[in-house]
Amino acid sequence: MELTPEQTAEIDAQRESRATTRRATVPDLEELLFQPIPLLDHGFVRVIDYMGDDAAIVQAARVSYGKGTRRVQDDAGLINYLMRHRHTTPFEMCEIKYHVKLPIFVARQWIRHRTANVNEYSARYSVLDKEYYIPAPDQLAAQSSSNRQGRGAVLEGEEAARVLDILRDDSERCYADYEEMLNEDRDGNRLNENREGLARELARMNLTLNTYTQWYWKIDLHNLLHFLSLRADPHAQYEIRVYADAMLETVRRWVPITCDAFTNYRMGGVQLSAHGLDVVKKLIAGEAVAQEQSGLSKREWRELMAVLGRDA
Amino acid sequence: MELTPEQTAEIDAQRESRATTRRATVPDLEELLFQPIPLLDHGFVRVIDYMGDDAAIVQAARVSYGKGTRRVQDDAGLINYLMRHRHTTPFEMCEIKYHVKLPIFVARQWIRHRTANVNEYSARYSVLDKEYYIPAPDQLAAQSSSNRQGRGAVLEGEEAARVLDILRDDSERCYADYEEMLNEDRDGNRLNENREGLARELARMNLTLNTYTQWYWKIDLHNLLHFLSLRADPHAQYEIRVYADAMLETVRRWVPITCDAFTNYRMGGVQLSAHGLDVVKKLIAGEAVAQEQSGLSKREWRELMAVLGRDA
Amino acid sequence: MELTPEQTAEIDAQRESRATTRRATVPDLEELLFQPIPLLDHGFVRVIDYMGDDAAIVQAARVSYGKGTRRVQDDAGLINYLMRHRHTTPFEMCEIKYHVKLPIFVARQWIRHRTANVNEYSARYSVLDKEYYIPAPDQLAAQSSSNRQGRGAVLEGEEAARVLDILRDDSERCYADYEEMLNEDRDGNRLNENREGLARELARMNLTLNTYTQWYWKIDLHNLLHFLSLRADPHAQYEIRVYADAMLETVRRWVPITCDAFTNYRMGGVQLSAHGLDVVKKLIAGEAVAQEQSGLSKREWRELMAVLGRDA
Amino acid sequence: MELTPEQTAEIDAQRESRATTRRATVPDLEELLFQPIPLLDHGFVRVIDYMGDDAAIVQAARVSYGKGTRRVQDDAGLINYLMRHRHTTPFEMCEIKYHVKLPIFVARQWIRHRTANVNEYSARYSVLDKEYYIPAPDQLAAQSSSNRQGRGAVLEGEEAARVLDILRDDSERCYADYEEMLNEDRDGNRLNENREGLARELARMNLTLNTYTQWYWKIDLHNLLHFLSLRADPHAQYEIRVYADAMLETVRRWVPITCDAFTNYRMGGVQLSAHGLDVVKKLIAGEAVAQEQSGLSKREWRELMAVLGRDA
Repeated sequence: MELTPEQTAEIDAQRESRATTRRATVPDLEELLFQPIPLLDHGFVRVIDYMGDDAAIVQAARVSYGKGTRRVQDDAGLINYLMRHRHTTPFEMCEIKYHVKLPIFVARQWIRHRTANVNEYSARYSVLDKEYYIPAPDQLAAQSSSNRQGRGAVLEGEEAARVLDILRDDSERCYADYEEMLNEDRDGNRLNENREGLARELARMNLTLNTYTQWYWKIDLHNLLHFLSLRADPHAQYEIRVYADAMLETVRRWVPITCDAFTNYRMGGVQLSAHGLDVVKKLIAGEAVAQEQSGLSKREWRELMAVLGRDA
Repeated sequence: MELTPEQTAEIDAQRESRATTRRATVPDLEELLFQPIPLLDHGFVRVIDYMGDDAAIVQAARVSYGKGTRRVQDDAGLINYLMRHRHTTPFEMCEIKYHVKLPIFVARQWIRHRTANVNEYSARYSVLDKEYYIPAPDQLAAQSSSNRQGRGAVLEGEEAARVLDILRDDSERCYADYEEMLNEDRDGNRLNENREGLARELARMNLTLNTYTQWYWKIDLHNLLHFLSLRADPHAQYEIRVYADAMLETVRRWVPITCDAFTNYRMGGVQLSAHGLDVVKKLIAGEAVAQEQSGLSKREWRELMAVLGRDA
Repeated sequence: MELTPEQTAEIDAQRESRATTRRATVPDLEELLFQPIPLLDHGFVRVIDYMGDDAAIVQAARVSYGKGTRRVQDDAGLINYLMRHRHTTPFEMCEIKYHVKLPIFVARQWIRHRTANVNEYSARYSVLDKEYYIPAPDQLAAQSSSNRQGRGAVLEGEEAARVLDILRDDSERCYADYEEMLNEDRDGNRLNENREGLARELARMNLTLNTYTQWYWKIDLHNLLHFLSLRADPHAQYEIRVYADAMLETVRRWVPITCDAFTNYRMGGVQLSAHGLDVVKKLIAGEAVAQEQSGLSKREWRELMAVLGRDA
Repeated sequence: MELTPEQTAEIDAQRESRATTRRATVPDLEELLFQPIPLLDHGFVRVIDYMGDDAAIVQAARVSYGKGTRRVQDDAGLINYLMRHRHTTPFEMCEIKYHVKLPIFVARQWIRHRTANVNEYSARYSVLDKEYYIPAPDQLAAQSSSNRQGRGAVLEGEEAARVLDILRDDSERCYADYEEMLNEDRDGNRLNENREGLARELARMNLTLNTYTQWYWKIDLHNLLHFLSLRADPHAQYEIRVYADAMLETVRRWVPITCDAFTNYRMGGVQLSAHGLDVVKKLIAGEAVAQEQSGLSKREWRELMAVLGRDA
C-alpha cells in the first residue's frame, strides 16, 4: 500500500484534529483512528468513526438513564450472558465505520452481507487507480482435491512463475487498454485529441477482477461479529480473511469485554447437532461408538472427531 | 415527565463527563446530549449518541481519504444533489441513538419501521412504571367523518369529561390490579406473604395500551429522515407526530445542511402523478381542465388543487 | 376460536377454488391451506400462500436451469450440508405467508423479528373485535424465583381464581368503555345520537394488552427457522411458543427434508463455548474436572451438565 | 443467448409439468414461467416462481378471511390509494423469483439493492462459462461531456472498431489464461498432467468485469418496484436498464392493476421540491419567474422546465 503525499496529508490532518465530546469514547481505538492498516499488496482497512463501547451495550440492555454500568465484573457477566443466549439487540447499539481498499473479487464476497451501509468508489463517475492484486508466492495455492471450495498445496517452480506472469501481464494489458479506450488520465486530461474516449461506465468492463476498489462500510457490532465469525474462519478465502482478522483486532481495542465473549462463545466454540451430542454423551460414558451407528455422515464424523481432538 | 432524583443524578453525571476525540463532533448537538425533551404527559426523547455530521456525508459520497469537504457552498451543493436524486447511501453513513419514553400504542406504530435497532424495557423481566397517557383536552378529538383514519373536531362538555374519566379510571384500576396480581412492587418486595404472585410476563397483559414503555432506538440518518417524512406529516397521528417533530429539531442541530435539503425536497415538496403533471401543464398553458377529464379521482383532484393553492 | 358464518364461508370458498400451475407445489401443505389452526382461546394461524419446496432450495443452491434435484438422497445430503455450514441463502428462496390472530402482548414480542413483511389490522381505521386472552388454569403460573424472565409453579385455589376474575373483569370493562367512547359498533352504527364519539385512533388506548389483533405475516424460510429456533424454544413465553409449535408443523408438511435438518442441527443441537468444549474433552478423556477450574460460571456449568445429562 | 441442449431440455421439462393448487394463480404469468427472455448478447431473465396477485394486495390490506376483493373497480381504487399514499406493506405481500444471467459489472450495481434474496453461481466452487459481454455498435457511447456519470454520442469509425477489438481480445485472452491457470475444463478434466492447476477461487481474479455470471434473485413486489423505479429510469446505465425493462413487463403480466398505478404515480410522476412548487404556482398564476429568484440551481431549473415541457 502506497498513499500519495496528498492522501497522507489528509489523513494526518484528520488525526491531528481534536474535539471535546460527552459521548462514550474509547482511547485505545482513538489511537488507531483514520490510520490505514496495510493488507495484501495494495489494500487497507481504516477505522473512520465509531459509536458506543462495552458500557453502551450494558446501558442499552438495561434501558438506563445513566451509563448503566456497575462494577466491571457485573458488566462482563451481563455481556457474557447476552452473548451466550444470543440476545443480540444490545450489541446492535454500537456502530463502526471503515474505509476499505480491496480487490473487486473480494468486494463481491463481502457485499453479500446485506446488513451494512456501503458507499463504493464509482467507476461510472471516476477513473479507477492502476492497482491490482497479485498473490504473494506463498498464497499461490493449487485447487484442493478434497474440497471443491478450497485450496491445496502451494504451487511451485515453473507453474508458479507462469501463473504470476499471467496475472501480471493480463492486469497490465487490461488496465492499459482501459486507459486507451477512456482516452483520459485520472485527472481528466484527454490523451489523444483525435479520439472521443469511451464512456467510463463502459470502459471499466475491461478491468480484471483483481483490480482494487474502495468503499466506506458501516455496520453495527452484532452484524460485524456475524461477518467476522464467517470471514475470520479458516474456511473463508484467505484474501477476505486477512481483512476480517485485521478488523477483529480493531474490535478488540474497541469493545474488549465483548471481544472476549465473542472469542469464547463463537469463534472458539462449536455447534453440535443432536446426533453429535449423542455421540459425545456416549464417549463420556465410555461407551463404544462408531460412525456407522452414529447417524453422522463420514464427513460429519471426521469433523466431530477433529473438534474433540480424537482420531477419526 | 418527572424523573426520580436518582435518574436526574445519572443524567447529570453523564452530561458532566467529557472526553477528547478525533471523531466528527457537533457542538450544537453535544449541548443537547442526554437531556430529556418532555413530550405528551410523561414521555420524552433524549439523544444518547451520534456518529457523523454533514461533512461525513460528503466524505462518504467522495470515498475520501480526509474530511472530504471543500467550501461550505460545495458541500451544500453536493448534499442537495444527493437528496434530489435520491442517492441515499451517503446519508446512511450517519447514525443517531435515542432513548424514548412513549405510550405502548405509539410504540406499536413506531416499531413498524424495521430499519432501526431497538432495545425495549422488558415487562417479562421487570415491573413497568405506573405511568399512562391521558390526552390533553385539546387533543380529545372526535372521529373524522370524512377520513376513516383521522380526527375531527375536539370533544367538549360532558362527553369530553366522561372520556377523560374513563381513561383515567380504567388505567388506574388496571395498573392497581397488575400490582395486585404481581404481588410485588417495583423493587421486588412481596406485598402479601400469603400469595405467590403471578409471573410478570403474564400480569402485564392486564395493562392498557396507553401505559408508557421505553426503549433505546438507533437508526441511520437516511432511514430516520424516511421515518420523519411519514411521522412528522400532518396525516400522522398526533401522539407520534410530537415525537417526530422533536426529533426533527435534533436533526436540525446535528446536520443543518441535510435538514435544509430534507425540508426543501421532501417535507415541503410534493409528488405529482403522471395525470397530475398533465393537469399542471395545462394550467400553466392557461387551458381549461376539469376533474372529470383529468384522469384524477375526485379525491386526488381535491388534493392536487390544495397543493397548488387553488379552489377545488 | 369462533369464526362468524361469513368468515367460514369466505374460507371455504377459497379452499374450494382450484387452479393449474407450473410452480413448485406441495400437496401436503395445500391440504392445510387457508384452514385456521386454533391456538389459545381465540387465536389461530392459517397458511395463506407459499413459494417453493425442498427441491427449490437445491435448485437455488445449484443455480439450476431445471429442477436442480437429483436423487432424494442427494438432495437431503445437500440440504444437510447447507444447514450444517450455515449456508443460509438457499433457504431464503422459499417464502410463506400466514394470517395470524394473536393477543397484542404476543404481537409485541413477535414484531421484534424485523425480517418479515407485516400487515396488521388497523385500530386507527377499524373497530377491534371484543376478544381477549384469558389463560387456561394450567397456564396461570407464578413468577419463577430462579429466573427473572420465567414462570414458576402454577397458581392454585383462591389466588388463581382471583387472578382470573381480575383479568376477565378488567378486559370486559375496558372493552365496554372502548365501545362507549367510540359511540359506534363494529358496523359503524352510532350508539347514542347525542354524542360525537372519540376518534378510533384514541379510543384504542383504553384496551388491555390481552386484546386480540391480527395480521398477515410473510417471511422467507431461513428467517422463519430463525424465528422458530427462538420462539419454539422452552425459554420462550408459552403464549408465543404455541404459535411457533403450530408453525413448525406447517414447515414439516411444506419442506420435510429441511425440517429434519433443522431439528437435528438447530433445535436438537447445542452450542458449546470454547471453555465448554475443553470440559467435554476432559470428560471424554476420563479426567476429573470441576466448575471452579473450568472457566465456566456456575450457571453455565449447570446448563452444560444438563445438556450432557449429568448431575451438576 | 444460446442454451445447451441439456439446459433447453431441463427448461422444457419444467414448463411441461403441471400441478393443481389452491393458491392465487396468474395465467398470464404462468405462460411465461421458466422461459428465458434474452437480453444483451448472452444474458437473460427468467421468472422461476411467484406468490400472490393484485387480489392478494387487497386481501392483505384488508387483513381478510377470504379473497378480500370486491369489484375490480374497488380493488383498483384501493391499490391506487395505497400507491399514492405510499402504504407500502400490502405490496410486500407478493413475491417473485428470477433466474438472471448478467455481466459482472451489472451484477455489481444490482447487488446494491439489499432487500432481496440472492444465490449466485460460485466461481470458488465451479468454473465460469466462457461468455462475456461486448456492446452492440449502437451502444458504444463516448463519455458525456455534461454528465460525469453518463454517455454521450455513439463512437464511430476507427475508434469504435478499435474499442471492440480491445474488448474482444482482452476478454478472450483473460479467459484463455483463466483456463490455463486452472488446468481444467468445465467438466473438471485436467488439461495438462504435469501441472497442478491454480485454485478456482484464485484463478477467477483474472477474468474481466464483462464476464457473465448468474443468480437466483427473489424479492417482494414493493422492493421490486423500487428497484425498477431506479433501474428502468433513463439515468440508469443501459446495460442494467434492459433487465429492468424486461422485468417491468413481467410485472405487467403478473399484477396489471398495480403496474398501472406504478406507471402513473411513480414512473410517469415527478417530485417537486418546495422551491419547485413555488415556481409552478407562479407559472399557473401567470407571474413572471426567473431562475435567479427561484431558489433553484441552474440545473434544477433546467430539469424543472424540461419536466413542464417548457424552454429553459
